[in-house]
Amino acid sequence: MNRITQLFNIKYPIIQAGMIWSSGWELASAVSNAGGLGLIGSGSMDPQILCEHICKCRAATDKPFGVNIPLIFSYADDFIKIVIEEKVPIVFTSAGNPGKYTAFLKEQGIKVVHVIANVKFAVKCEQLGVDAIVAEGFEAGGHNGREETTTMVLIPMIRKAVSIPLIAAGGIATGRGMLAAMALGAEGVQIGSRFVASEESSAHPAFKQKVIEAKDGDTQLSLKRIMPVRIIKNKFFTEADKMETQGATTEQLSALLGHGRSRKGMFEGDVDDGELEIGQVSGLINEIKPAAKIVEEIMDEYCKAKEALNHQSI
Amino acid sequence: MNRITQLFNIKYPIIQAGMIWSSGWELASAVSNAGGLGLIGSGSMDPQILCEHICKCRAATDKPFGVNIPLIFSYADDFIKIVIEEKVPIVFTSAGNPGKYTAFLKEQGIKVVHVIANVKFAVKCEQLGVDAIVAEGFEAGGHNGREETTTMVLIPMIRKAVSIPLIAAGGIATGRGMLAAMALGAEGVQIGSRFVASEESSAHPAFKQKVIEAKDGDTQLSLKRIMPVRIIKNKFFTEADKMETQGATTEQLSALLGHGRSRKGMFEGDVDDGELEIGQVSGLINEIKPAAKIVEEIMDEYCKAKEALNHQSI
Repeated sequence: MNRITQLFNIKYPIIQAGMIWSSGWELASAVSNAGGLGLIGSGSMDPQILCEHICKCRAATDKPFGVNIPLIFSYADDFIKIVIEEKVPIVFTSAGNPGKYTAFLKEQGIKVVHVIANVKFAVKCEQLGVDAIVAEGFEAGGHNGREETTTMVLIPMIRKAVSIPLIAAGGIATGRGMLAAMALGAEGVQIGSRFVASEESSAHPAFKQKVIEAKDGDTQLSLKRIMPVRIIKNKFFTEADKMETQGATTEQLSALLGHGRSRKGMFEGDVDDGELEIGQVSGLINEIKPAAKIVEEIMDEYCKAKEALNHQSI
Repeated sequence: MNRITQLFNIKYPIIQAGMIWSSGWELASAVSNAGGLGLIGSGSMDPQILCEHICKCRAATDKPFGVNIPLIFSYADDFIKIVIEEKVPIVFTSAGNPGKYTAFLKEQGIKVVHVIANVKFAVKCEQLGVDAIVAEGFEAGGHNGREETTTMVLIPMIRKAVSIPLIAAGGIATGRGMLAAMALGAEGVQIGSRFVASEESSAHPAFKQKVIEAKDGDTQLSLKRIMPVRIIKNKFFTEADKMETQGATTEQLSALLGHGRSRKGMFEGDVDDGELEIGQVSGLINEIKPAAKIVEEIMDEYCKAKEALNHQSI
């Protein structure tokens, strides 16, 4: 038991990140049933789809689960209404100003967690009464902070700056990674990439295959002039990177990105022309597994690594 | 005792990085006297200066110390001759091909460690018979790998790929950071930035002041089209960054960099126009201290954090 397991009423302090195109009700309920906290990633849904996923998730688990809402998303207002109507117990907000909905959600009895990548926003979250924060390092997949601070440095910085419960994200896919995060001062971990390559993930099989094939250096933080996003270095990445190197404007890059790139890659399986969001830690992931097995293996390795560390003579 | 303390015959598995302009004999001998391994950073020296530093270091400590030699450096051949003549017991090589000198140095009875940032070079080092490797993450100061893999991800990857002793570098300045590195599978840590801000460091006081003032987001991996280097975001950085954004060529960037930029910043104290190499972890460093005190505090925090982690209920 610690502050994170108590806050969410879960067995293990493992949160499955609410990711676009990968984490619907099947993955979220599987993780919650396994003792972690599953999150529905609403960023690739419309209001009706989100409602369906919440209902199906509730039917598939009697354990707590949550919804991740990217605040820059056009449906954010609708999604806030939906999670209240559907009495979702936990909401993770990201990619936006936590000031907008925190007080309102908390008045409804909803636990609010916000994702940050720097000290300034961590302090702001604490002042706003957010229940916990996810501090996400540079190595994480998908959208990411402009400071480029890595998990190794970010977690101790945030731990020094605020006293609210702290969840580490970015570069964590194993029990050893979880142990390192806890050593740095985190009280729980948010894991994305590892769960993309799960059986219950709604990511396209071709994308999952790319994830388990990825080696070191196969992802990069890209499209920094629009909004930094860590993706696999495929044909689309190479085009964007070439344009950036040649001094392309934000408008030119936005035109290249267009609409539906991430859907095309992650959901429809066009691994050349689609946008494939994944973390550096994909280089440590080699097999697609059931979500429950992933949770079990992480906790098992965590306990063994902790025991081994304790018995080291240094 | 572990493989790293045994290899170097030192008390604590803390290696002070051999950094340009900051780590001469005063710092190296202070760290070695404190129970770590001090390294003379030869990258900013000429052959005569290096000889002087080795002699003075030997006079100042009866403990083992080493020399770091960047292999791309024009004096590399001369420096290899010097460390053999002077019977320096330990050599760290970096920024180049470990195949060039490893066998030769080992024939002379010198322990050889090579700095790497990816799996491919780690495997190569093992095949060449290198005694240990330093795996350095993206968050580290100074020159850095093109893969941009962070310490959190790099250490477990390297641990999986090779079985030789492994030292973690990048983002480590505290006992908690050291504990995280050990949790990830490292057997020792190489620490740079923390020792730049030591009393014995030969860095200019104005540069040390910038290091202790740095906050999150104040450094960035820059000059990627020449050779990636993590520096403080000062006037020089801003000029280089602007040129890169506008699509400058390698030649244009090399012309901007010119010669002596790092000397100007780090040794002469021109903190606006000089190049100030430092890691992200500078954001966790707030005070200039004696090197011995730094070693003592890291080990103290390490032991306490290990004890606390062991007593956590998760």
